[in-house]
Amino acid sequence: MSVSTRASLQDAEHIIETARAMADAARAETLPRFRTALGVDNKRDGVDGAGFDPVTEADREAEVAMRAVLEERRPQDGVHGEELGRAEGMSGLTWVIDPVDGTRAFLIGAPVWGTLIAAVAEDGPLFGIIDQPWTGERWEGGLGHANLASPHGTADLGVRGTRALDGALLCTTFPEVGTEAERAAFVRVAERARLVRYGMDCYAYGLLAAGHVDLVIEAGLHAYDICAPIAVVEAAGGIVTNWEGGPAHAGGRAVAAATAELHAAALDLLRG
Amino acid sequence: MSVSTRASLQDAEHIIETARAMADAARAETLPRFRTALGVDNKRDGVDGAGFDPVTEADREAEVAMRAVLEERRPQDGVHGEELGRAEGMSGLTWVIDPVDGTRAFLIGAPVWGTLIAAVAEDGPLFGIIDQPWTGERWEGGLGHANLASPHGTADLGVRGTRALDGALLCTTFPEVGTEAERAAFVRVAERARLVRYGMDCYAYGLLAAGHVDLVIEAGLHAYDICAPIAVVEAAGGIVTNWEGGPAHAGGRAVAAATAELHAAALDLLRG
Repeated sequence: MSVSTRASLQDAEHIIETARAMADAARAETLPRFRTALGVDNKRDGVDGAGFDPVTEADREAEVAMRAVLEERRPQDGVHGEELGRAEGMSGLTWVIDPVDGTRAFLIGAPVWGTLIAAVAEDGPLFGIIDQPWTGERWEGGLGHANLASPHGTADLGVRGTRALDGALLCTTFPEVGTEAERAAFVRVAERARLVRYGMDCYAYGLLAAGHVDLVIEAGLHAYDICAPIAVVEAAGGIVTNWEGGPAHAGGRAVAAATAELHAAALDLLRG
Repeated sequence: MSVSTRASLQDAEHIIETARAMADAARAETLPRFRTALGVDNKRDGVDGAGFDPVTEADREAEVAMRAVLEERRPQDGVHGEELGRAEGMSGLTWVIDPVDGTRAFLIGAPVWGTLIAAVAEDGPLFGIIDQPWTGERWEGGLGHANLASPHGTADLGVRGTRALDGALLCTTFPEVGTEAERAAFVRVAERARLVRYGMDCYAYGLLAAGHVDLVIEAGLHAYDICAPIAVVEAAGGIVTNWEGGPAHAGGRAVAAATAELHAAALDLLRG
């Protein structure tokens, strides 16, 4: 089976169903471990004692579970995961997955971490899921889909129409952003934005795709941090590139914007 | 009816039921307006056009709704709300309420804002609720209660046992914290902490009470920002004071800690 940038209809459905099965499998491993950490001075020996690290366990077990789904359903595809590395496939399609994106958010109990799942062809992501198990929110984008399912219902995704920086709501995860130079570049954009918000991890891309924020700027990313967000944001009508305006799916520095005008304005300032 | 620091059993039940009715009434006004803003360039004239501001509307309508509950159930009590000011009562009890704490979080669609409701006697909060309508989480603390109800079930609250700063997970809302001096004081603590996280608003106090973070440090607070968190955190076994170690319920600068040792260590550094 060959996978081009436009997967065949039949294969598209199989890709989507597989991604959903992977998200379900990951959720079964992450959610029971969320908010189970003990305070450092509370730790006892034994099962919940020294060495018990629910974030690490959730990360590893969720990736094992997602790989098992792939092994059963699509053994011909490649896998590239945060925890267990890369396995080449024969189909041209690679699953780029991060079982727990936002381990610090997970650690403090904040529901803005997510499981990231992307089906990626050679020229970029075809389909992606951002899944937040605690809130029950699942963003899907690509192969004709663009929606957010949650306990409050299912809604179509769609970015806002914000074109000017002074109207833009901007998110990033850490105030440090990355290197000193990367932070300086970010600050040039932040100083012109309407509002800057920290601490959202992959949830920020979901908010962008759902039309609530306008810009997400990050640095120091791995491919598995950004492939699923790219698929979701692009399916919602947004733009994601690296800070030079090229493809972002290999990782590094990413800027996601609601509109082409806003993207261009941010790129101008990021380039300095 | 007089309310001392220890409300009579019968009155305690009435206070708790009233607070819950207020939280329900606020939720009915905030949740339908959450995530309904349009991008600035999308705004049309008319009902969703210029001047339509769902955060401001949610804030005002939720406070009106909460005051209506009080007027019906406890007209003898005072009210101090963010939106509609202060009305003295005759009972010695004042309801200190913030319909949407974390308006910026609300604005960007992040589920870490909350409705804050506190029943406050002269010497401090007796009972408080932190309510997050999107996630369906409701923290309650005081008058013998300390629990978190959510779609995942109801759990007792209880702080972690973290005693040393180098094991502490620290939250605040804005990296700027407050004045330059306040930011410098915060940084002295942050540099010693295990992890610092921004952007959690009142949700951070809920995470502290539920045993997921160890310290929350903020400045520039109003009474209605901190009274409910004080009730919830203290009911969970934590400590909340101002940066001088005195009562924090009048607002200003607050430090909430899981343990007395951690609280003392943070105070030492905040004082400089």
